[in-house]
Amino acid sequence: MRVTALAGGGGAAKFLRGLVRAVDPKQVTIIGNTGDDAWFHGLYVSPDLDIVTYTLAGVVDETGWGIKADTTHALDQLANYGVDTWFTLKDKDLGTHMARTTWLADGVPLSEVTDRIRNGLGVESRILPMSDDPVRTRIVTAEGIEREFQEYFVRFRHSEDVSKVTFEGAADSHPAPGVIEAIGLSERIIVCPSNPVVSIGPILSVPGIREALTARRDDIFAISPIVQGAALKGPADKLLPVVGAEASASGVAGLYKDFCGTFVVDYRDAPEAGKVEALGMRVMVLETVMESEGIARQLAKEVLLL
Amino acid sequence: MRVTALAGGGGAAKFLRGLVRAVDPKQVTIIGNTGDDAWFHGLYVSPDLDIVTYTLAGVVDETGWGIKADTTHALDQLANYGVDTWFTLKDKDLGTHMARTTWLADGVPLSEVTDRIRNGLGVESRILPMSDDPVRTRIVTAEGIEREFQEYFVRFRHSEDVSKVTFEGAADSHPAPGVIEAIGLSERIIVCPSNPVVSIGPILSVPGIREALTARRDDIFAISPIVQGAALKGPADKLLPVVGAEASASGVAGLYKDFCGTFVVDYRDAPEAGKVEALGMRVMVLETVMESEGIARQLAKEVLLL
Repeated sequence: MRVTALAGGGGAAKFLRGLVRAVDPKQVTIIGNTGDDAWFHGLYVSPDLDIVTYTLAGVVDETGWGIKADTTHALDQLANYGVDTWFTLKDKDLGTHMARTTWLADGVPLSEVTDRIRNGLGVESRILPMSDDPVRTRIVTAEGIEREFQEYFVRFRHSEDVSKVTFEGAADSHPAPGVIEAIGLSERIIVCPSNPVVSIGPILSVPGIREALTARRDDIFAISPIVQGAALKGPADKLLPVVGAEASASGVAGLYKDFCGTFVVDYRDAPEAGKVEALGMRVMVLETVMESEGIARQLAKEVLLL
Repeated sequence: MRVTALAGGGGAAKFLRGLVRAVDPKQVTIIGNTGDDAWFHGLYVSPDLDIVTYTLAGVVDETGWGIKADTTHALDQLANYGVDTWFTLKDKDLGTHMARTTWLADGVPLSEVTDRIRNGLGVESRILPMSDDPVRTRIVTAEGIEREFQEYFVRFRHSEDVSKVTFEGAADSHPAPGVIEAIGLSERIIVCPSNPVVSIGPILSVPGIREALTARRDDIFAISPIVQGAALKGPADKLLPVVGAEASASGVAGLYKDFCGTFVVDYRDAPEAGKVEALGMRVMVLETVMESEGIARQLAKEVLLL
C-alpha cells in the first residue's frame, strides 16, 4: 500500500514513526512543510524536514528536534562573540545545514537536497518538501509586529497573541517534483496531527496541492491535532481562531472538509464526532495521544484500516 | 612605540606572538592578508586573519591553525552526506565563521567584523584586514588550470607547479579603514616573515598601500621568510620564481626594495647580506628561525632596536 502523509514537525514525526512500522517504509512519501525554513548565521535550516528526517533515522534528540548526544561547541563560540543564539544549532546538526547550504548554493533544488539528506541518514521513506520555491510563514502579532515564523515560534515561544498568518511567496510557488504524483498515486493520504494553521496551512497554500487533494477526497484521512480543545504541544489552539476556526477537533475538520473525506478524533473527543459528520465527513474515534511508539503504530494501522 | 606589522598566516603568527611580548600589545596594529578568504558550506572563512587572531588569543591549535582541543562533529556529519570536506573546519572554529558570516550579511564591513572577533577573544592588538573589498588570490598551474587559493594550497597541498598568481578584484579595492593611518602613524613597520607572493603580495596589491609604505621606507623592516634558499613552511620558495625572483633572502629583498629600508636575513644566510646591501637596503643578520616564543620575542626586540 502506497501512503502519502502531509507533515509538520513534532506531532507528525511521532505519527510517522508509527506509520513506517505499520507499512513498508519504502512505500511511504512524506510531504513536509517548508514555511518554517530560515537562514541562521549563513546556513539554510529546514526545521520541519529535519525533525521528520531525524526521527525516521532514529537519531532525533529526546527534545524532539536536533540530533541526539550532540554538542554546542560552535554555538558556545558564537555566543562568546556576542551573537544572539536564540535558535539552537548543535554541532552534528550544523553538518546537515552546511550540506544543505552547500548544495543549494550549487543550484541543487531543495527536493533533491532533502533526498540526499534522508538517504545519507538511511531513511527509507521518501521525504519531499512541499515546494522547491521559497514560501515563508509570517506572523503578525496583535500589536501589529510582523515576525518571521521562527522568531514567533522559538524566540518568543509562541507567547504573543496573533492577528494574522501569511505565507509569503505562496502565490508564485509550485509543488516540488513528485508532490502531485504522490498524492495522485497513493492508495491512502494522511494529514498528520500537525498544526492546521502553520504546518499544514503552508502546504495547502502552494497552488495545485489543495486541488490535487480534493480529487482524492475519499482516500484522505486527517488526524486531529486538537484533543479536548487543546493542542498537545505548540500554539495550534491559539492560532485556529486567527483563521476563523474553533479550537476543537471539529474546528480543524471544518478547515479540511473540502479535501478530506475522513476525520480522526481522539476518543476523549467522542462528543465531537457528530459535529464532524455534520460537515459531511466520515469520523473515526481512536486513541491519538501517542505516548509510545506502539500507540503511534496502532493509530497508523487503524487509520489505514489494516 | 607604535608598531604596524604586515602579516600572512603561520610564519607571521609566530613572529607576532613574540612581538606582543616585546612591546605593549595595545600599540600593535596588524594588517592581515585576506586574499586567502573563501566561502565554505555557506560560511565566510578568513584563514590568515584567524591564524593571527587565534595565535595572539592563545587558543590556536598546535597545527598552527584552528582552535585547540576542538572537535569535528559538524564536519563528520557533513562527510556522512558525501560532501567533500577537504578544508577542515572544526566546531569551535565554525562559531567564528558563523559570527563573521552573520555580521557580513548584516552589512558590517570585514574590518569591523575582524575587530569584534579579536575583541571577543581578548586580543589587545588591533587586527585589520588589508581591505574590506574582496581581493582573491588565484593560482594558474603550469597546466593552465585556474584554482582558488585554498584549493591550490590546502586541497592540492601546494604540490602543483605554478605559472601565474593573480589578485582578482585588487584594482578596484581600497585599503580598509585604519590601514593607511596605521602605516603613517607607527614608529616602526614590520613586514613579517610571510610568503612574499601569496601573503604579502595580496596586501601590496591593494592600491594605496604600497605607496603609503614607500613614504615610510626608512622605518620599514622586513624579515626574510626564506632561509638558505628554502621556505620554513609553505611554497614561498616555489612561488618566488613565478614572479621573477630568486628563491633566496636577497630574492625577497629585491621584491621589497622600493618600500623597505632594512631587510633582516637569518644568520645562516650571512653571505646574502652583501647582495641585499647592493639593492640599496640596510641589512640585519639575526636568528629568524623561531623554534620558541623566546626566539620570536628576541627577534622582535632586535628588529625594533630595543
